Amino acid sequence: MHDFEAFIAKRFSALLPYPGKTSDAMAYSLLNHGGKRVRPKLVIDTVASYGIDPSISYDLAMAVECIHTYSLIHDDLPCMDDDTLRRGVPTNHVIYGPDNATLAGDGLNTLAFEVIATSTVLNDHQKVAATSTLARMANGMVYGQCIDLASEHTQIDAQTLLKLHQYKTGCLLSAALMLGGIASSHDEDLSALENIGYDLGIAFQFQDDIFDVTKDEVTLGKNNSDVRNEKSTSVSLFGLTKAKTMMQDYYDHALDLVETTLHLADPKPLQDFIHALIKRDH
Amino acid sequence: MHDFEAFIAKRFSALLPYPGKTSDAMAYSLLNHGGKRVRPKLVIDTVASYGIDPSISYDLAMAVECIHTYSLIHDDLPCMDDDTLRRGVPTNHVIYGPDNATLAGDGLNTLAFEVIATSTVLNDHQKVAATSTLARMANGMVYGQCIDLASEHTQIDAQTLLKLHQYKTGCLLSAALMLGGIASSHDEDLSALENIGYDLGIAFQFQDDIFDVTKDEVTLGKNNSDVRNEKSTSVSLFGLTKAKTMMQDYYDHALDLVETTLHLADPKPLQDFIHALIKRDH
Repeated sequence: MHDFEAFIAKRFSALLPYPGKTSDAMAYSLLNHGGKRVRPKLVIDTVASYGIDPSISYDLAMAVECIHTYSLIHDDLPCMDDDTLRRGVPTNHVIYGPDNATLAGDGLNTLAFEVIATSTVLNDHQKVAATSTLARMANGMVYGQCIDLASEHTQIDAQTLLKLHQYKTGCLLSAALMLGGIASSHDEDLSALENIGYDLGIAFQFQDDIFDVTKDEVTLGKNNSDVRNEKSTSVSLFGLTKAKTMMQDYYDHALDLVETTLHLADPKPLQDFIHALIKRDH
Repeated sequence: MHDFEAFIAKRFSALLPYPGKTSDAMAYSLLNHGGKRVRPKLVIDTVASYGIDPSISYDLAMAVECIHTYSLIHDDLPCMDDDTLRRGVPTNHVIYGPDNATLAGDGLNTLAFEVIATSTVLNDHQKVAATSTLARMANGMVYGQCIDLASEHTQIDAQTLLKLHQYKTGCLLSAALMLGGIASSHDEDLSALENIGYDLGIAFQFQDDIFDVTKDEVTLGKNNSDVRNEKSTSVSLFGLTKAKTMMQDYYDHALDLVETTLHLADPKPLQDFIHALIKRDH
């Protein structure tokens, strides 16, 4: 991913030539403390599985990461989860203030679509398909956050919890897979790719819930605001053992869909990506 | 604009089929208390001046209004200007809470680009040009807000004030004009349209500053947070008389550019738009 890091730093500077705290705040969360790059890797590995040169998808990989990063900055704000630690460093608003952090999130949200529209390697059809897909999924994620807010300080049922995870976490993983399909000109797989993302999202979030009760904050590099906000989690709802089984079932189902529903040249990069998620320790 | 109001209500419901407070909050600011529609009208009147059926530009007119509306919702937040009254009604966060208001702004920001990408009347080239233009201008507006934040509780010079207004207010008016040019397939005028928007933005903001000292809050339908935040304005910097002269000069310059630099079929709709701005009383 070294190439990709250089790519997004260059694109960021070219598209946001503005001095000042808001640009600094955007760079802080997107570039300097950029996290695990799960969604960009998913775009790139999907394209690799289709047998295409992954560099064609860097704009789309950056776009989904811009959306993910804006959502984290806003999610951490004092008026939202009020988290002060993320990726082992202070959250955006702790450094730049809630005002500039709000603007930085706004700028990254918009930047996602500018990166797609100004790509020099995608054709207009791909750009329009990517914009419409990413926008729909990003607003699915916002719906997930809306469900999340409505679920604070209350006991929710299993169906609501699954819907919450499908939207809040699954939508952007679906977007990443679908953007990979668009970059590879395999539009016939978009609906299957979308469904794989929902499985991965639910599994990923169950895994986070499991980490929250089995790992400490130093290992995780973030606060656990779920307890403070009295949020229901897969562990609180199903218990640790059943949550672990369900997580594995969702991952297995995603692997099965990869094998049976997609028109890939080589499923290995995408399978490896999912196996790496299963084995992650934070 | 009756047609346009029905159009955006329909597009909104189709693209955001989600129940809950966040969607309600988006509808509250975009649809129910939609303000003067200055930017949509500017898109539509630009297209009319090019001699094209304005309804081809409704998606673009809606997109720029989504960006404008998100910026107002976030600008009013307690962590930003902390305003409680807008368009004569309580601001978004007063009704829906700062958390859902933050999400509502995020959703409208993204929705702008989804509306463009899913248009049934624009071609792919127009969609890509509109996306890249609107995104660049929306992040110019964010830069303007960044300058604005840095200017609170401090005396700024004339040059900084003009840059602030050019970016914070001018960028979206430039975007509206340029989107009209894109819908009319007059890409050769985009740079001239951009410059007209900057003149209008500075004139419009000078006018707002003048209203803030000559009209009461009931007439304006909003709080005046500039005084509370000790912001420099054109009136505090130049005095009321000179601010009025400068405002008129910027409007006249915009009218001159419309007459001399654009390839219009009939300048009247665009001229009428600017004259209506000059004559507005709030």
